[in-house]
Amino acid sequence: MNNDSKTSLFIIKIGGNVLDEPAARAAFVRDFAALPGPKLLVHGGGKIATQLGQRLGIEAKYVAGRRVTDAATLELVTMVYGGLVNRRLVAELAAAGCPAIGLTGADADILPAARRAATAEIDFGHVGDPLPEQVGVAALRVFFEKNWAPVFAPLTHDGMGNLLNTNADTIASVVARALAGFYNVRLIFCFEKKGVLENPDDENSARLQLTRADYRILREKTAVSGGILPKLDNAFAAAENGVASVLIGHAAELLENAMGKNPSATRILP
Amino acid sequence: MNNDSKTSLFIIKIGGNVLDEPAARAAFVRDFAALPGPKLLVHGGGKIATQLGQRLGIEAKYVAGRRVTDAATLELVTMVYGGLVNRRLVAELAAAGCPAIGLTGADADILPAARRAATAEIDFGHVGDPLPEQVGVAALRVFFEKNWAPVFAPLTHDGMGNLLNTNADTIASVVARALAGFYNVRLIFCFEKKGVLENPDDENSARLQLTRADYRILREKTAVSGGILPKLDNAFAAAENGVASVLIGHAAELLENAMGKNPSATRILP
Repeated sequence: MNNDSKTSLFIIKIGGNVLDEPAARAAFVRDFAALPGPKLLVHGGGKIATQLGQRLGIEAKYVAGRRVTDAATLELVTMVYGGLVNRRLVAELAAAGCPAIGLTGADADILPAARRAATAEIDFGHVGDPLPEQVGVAALRVFFEKNWAPVFAPLTHDGMGNLLNTNADTIASVVARALAGFYNVRLIFCFEKKGVLENPDDENSARLQLTRADYRILREKTAVSGGILPKLDNAFAAAENGVASVLIGHAAELLENAMGKNPSATRILP
Repeated sequence: MNNDSKTSLFIIKIGGNVLDEPAARAAFVRDFAALPGPKLLVHGGGKIATQLGQRLGIEAKYVAGRRVTDAATLELVTMVYGGLVNRRLVAELAAAGCPAIGLTGADADILPAARRAATAEIDFGHVGDPLPEQVGVAALRVFFEKNWAPVFAPLTHDGMGNLLNTNADTIASVVARALAGFYNVRLIFCFEKKGVLENPDDENSARLQLTRADYRILREKTAVSGGILPKLDNAFAAAENGVASVLIGHAAELLENAMGKNPSATRILP
């Protein structure tokens, strides 16, 4: 089945900057609700979790861009990602005419994961890596058929009663790949920049496209580093595994033009 | 259609005492998962919200047994009810072989509510009264057909983007009445006592059954008072509006015998 014969499905990942500010969030909700056809949202919320953690005396610890999740931090992110951020987005989407279902990976066993094993160097704690072969595709298709947009908090579960903290970019990529056989998936990572910058000091140097070879070169000259590296790894994994289109860019500019041919963003090429 | 020709549907309400203790929660999860056929859970979580609120400097205020919900309290209960309590229960049910979907009333617009109007005496704040005619029965039936147990946090929405704090007993009663036309609904309110006590000082004085006339007499001699009054009002509203069976009793004793003929609990008679 070629891509043209399949229904388009938008999978959008949004991060903290969009969620923090009520005005940006309202604009995003409006843009997301206006996307035609089936759509799925994956959100972060790390900044809000860090702020609440400070009020509760729970310190945020990161290793290689990933939050170390002890028991108190798991409760914190379950409240913030699975509660505050997710439930509020679902209510706002409903008001915007986009009925939604707020999910963690435990709902309908939709996203099982393996707890990441501790190494001699680092124990990430209650952190899960999704099991791509076990994504609940049938359940997701039920939601799409009912015109309900699945809204994923970045939480999975181990099938033994424990929630696990999981990177939202990873969830977006894994779910996109699992659905690529059924839909013409258009995966969009929204973040605070206009795309992958050729020059990290120039906000207007976003590349129009990026291949693996380009990525290697940018990384060698350290034009890309830090938190964008796992995002790009997830983006390439999607582009190379059947996802029809993968874009990285700024939420406001990108979603308004998502249907256009030349959104201002970086296209990830397989 | 008489009750006998309809499929049985269990609707269980559990409150704080069951949720607070891991051992009691584990036993409840096991018992709930073992109930045959379609089932739906509504949970509270007020104690955990109050405890977290204390850590955050958010004071719990009650009028006539109902929490006054200012903006900070709405965020608090969205995190605790919609996040921590709901998401954890869903993960634990999945592990017990009972796939579930964790919901607020905003999901699929399943439980719209009207914000309670302020009076000269009291403004409850962000509190919602469900609109019984607008319960998303079609969505709930989709979940039952897929063998997913809906798990409701005590939150509804106003359809304008705002979540609302809503009494869990009320949600259980409203949902039970909305589904009574399609299922032989067995509504069970679990709380810390063995039933409605004839003598509030004697834990073993639970009545086997209670009519409106009995209720009036108990209330007049103040044998029942406080938080159980709205629970009983919700119970009678269900029994008098097509719900096949309404029981009030202790979670552990009640659910283990839910299929038996003589569970130790008070049966509410229409």
